[in-house]
Order: sequence, then structure tokens, then C-alpha cells
Amino acid sequence: MTDSGARPGKRERLVSSASDLLYRQGVERTTIAQIANAADVPPGNVYYYFKTRDDLVHAAIDAQAGEMTTLFAGLERLPDPHARLRGLIHSWTDDCERAAEYGCPMGGLCSELNKVEGDLSRHAAGLIGRLIDWAAGQFVLMGRPDGPQLAVTMIARIEGAMLLANTLRDPQIMFAQSRELEEWVDSLA
Amino acid sequence: MTDSGARPGKRERLVSSASDLLYRQGVERTTIAQIANAADVPPGNVYYYFKTRDDLVHAAIDAQAGEMTTLFAGLERLPDPHARLRGLIHSWTDDCERAAEYGCPMGGLCSELNKVEGDLSRHAAGLIGRLIDWAAGQFVLMGRPDGPQLAVTMIARIEGAMLLANTLRDPQIMFAQSRELEEWVDSLA
Repeated sequence: MTDSGARPGKRERLVSSASDLLYRQGVERTTIAQIANAADVPPGNVYYYFKTRDDLVHAAIDAQAGEMTTLFAGLERLPDPHARLRGLIHSWTDDCERAAEYGCPMGGLCSELNKVEGDLSRHAAGLIGRLIDWAAGQFVLMGRPDGPQLAVTMIARIEGAMLLANTLRDPQIMFAQSRELEEWVDSLA
Repeated sequence: MTDSGARPGKRERLVSSASDLLYRQGVERTTIAQIANAADVPPGNVYYYFKTRDDLVHAAIDAQAGEMTTLFAGLERLPDPHARLRGLIHSWTDDCERAAEYGCPMGGLCSELNKVEGDLSRHAAGLIGRLIDWAAGQFVLMGRPDGPQLAVTMIARIEGAMLLANTLRDPQIMFAQSRELEEWVDSLA
């Protein structure tokens, strides 16, 4: 799938609008027409880029994977694994208000797609797997051979805190839980 | 809404089928026709009991609230708050295979309904709130004035572990995380 011959930016706009709408209203409730409208792309043009809504969801997951690559690259410029893990926590909690309003973009997507067996579900699960692997690597660099288990604990705690903050519409939950997590990471360093 | 004049059990069967289908396939993908079919109730009869799918979802949440009441009543027969909190963890992890296949019934429902502002979302959130309050009370009985904060941490960790186990289809995650949580509760006792 390429943009050759098409006005530059349409595909990118569709993916960006899809990501935003999937985040705010979920997969099932989001239509191609809504995405096209939000992207300011005529609905009839969408099929030039994406044959189905699933293709668009797939591309939105790819975009999340791209953001994760950028995040990891930024964190890896930090001097040590302890700082990188703290940075990872901050990447979720920088905007507690938004977390309380809409939850975790990745966690919400996985939770919904978990109900649907198939490629999309596995594709979204790949994001969580990659995140755990990265965090596990950092814990191992910190001298913790139990890095994989610690990484699961850390990501579970973040995802659970996001779910509770979102469910109870309470940013303070995210704020307090991230403080606790930072102290926990400090205690392991 | 009463069952007077109707064959006993139809309403109960509809609520039970709704609960099961909502758990396995989510709210948006579940139709009244599917629920009626699973409950062995003629679709035309459903409207005698429930005017809309939302009414059925509401009743399924009520059913979860009823199960929670039963769970708490059972746990409160245990001799001390420490045992009750361990019992609460076990209530999730007794069936790690099912957790890995379908996630947490309550967490999944909240995650999906969080995307839809309204009564249903608040009704489901009430389940999480009630759970946190109950756990907070037990921590306070254990002599922990920070009970409310500990309760949020505990429920967040359980919900996050369920989400990861479900996303990665790995019961072992739930098993290991529940062991960690038990040790954590022990350390606070």
C-alpha cells in the first residue's frame, strides 16, 4: 500500500483520525465514515488506502508500534536502565487527566480486541509483548535476573491503574499509582 | 419489572445468557437476538422483560453486583481481614485458564463501557468502586490507615494482571501475579 499518485497526507490523516477515534470510542463503535469525516477525506477515497475497517485498525496499531519505537529510542538515550524505567512510567502518567478520561490507548484496544480472535487481536497483543520485553531487558541490565517477571508486574500495574483511573474518572489514581511504581522501581535498583 | 404471569426462569435465563455473551464477546458485538437464542427464549418475548439491549446489560451488571454480595458474604465468614483479602485474590485466580481466555468479567465490561458516557458506564463503575471500598475496609481492619490507597493498588494489580494474561493468552501470568499479590498482602499483615 503506497501513497504514490495520491495527494500526500491523506493516508496519514486517516491513520491519525482512526487512532484518535479508536482511542476515544473503541473499535466496534467507530465507522469508516466517521474516520473519513474526521480526517477530512471523502469516504469514497478511503478504499484507495484501506479496503476494510480492519485494515485501518491494523494501520492504527502499526502507528502505535511506531510511537513505541520513538519512545524507546528516547528512553535509551537516558544514562541507565533505572532512569529508563522511570521514564517509561512517566510516559503514561505525563497526562493523568487524559488517562482518566480515555484510559490507555494500547490497553483499551487490547481489552476490546481480546474478545475477537484473529489477526488484529494478535497484532495488538504484539504491542504489549514488545513493551514487556523492553522493560524486562532494562530490569536485567539493572542486574535483576527476574527481569521478565518484574516487567510483567510493572506493565500489569500500569495497565490496571489506567483502567481504574478511567473507570472512576479519577486522575488522582493514576498519579498516586505512578508514584508508588516509581518507589518500587527505586527499591529494585 | 416482574416475572408475574410469565413462565418462571425466562428473565433469569436471559440475564445469564447476556452475562455470558457480554463476557465472551463484549457489549457492542452482542445482539438481543443472540442473547435470546442462547437463553432459549423466543426473540419476540425478550421485550416483555427488557425494552432495550441496554436494559439487559444493566441487568447483567446487577447480576455481577449480586455475585459480589455473595462473594463478600462468603469472605466475611473468614476469621480475619488478612484471610479475606487472600480469599479475594483467589476468587479471581481460581480459574486462571478462564481468565487467560476471557479476562475479567468486570474489568472488560468497564473498559468497554468507559468509551460510552452514560448510565451503563456509571453502573459498571459502581462495581469497581464497591470492590475497592470493601478491600479498603479489610485493610483498615488489618490496622492499615492507608487502606483506601492499598485497596486501589490491589485491585489495579489484579485487573492489570487479568488484562495481560488475557492479551497474551497466558494463564501463567495470572498465576504468578496472584502469588506475588498474596506475598504483598502477607507483608502488610
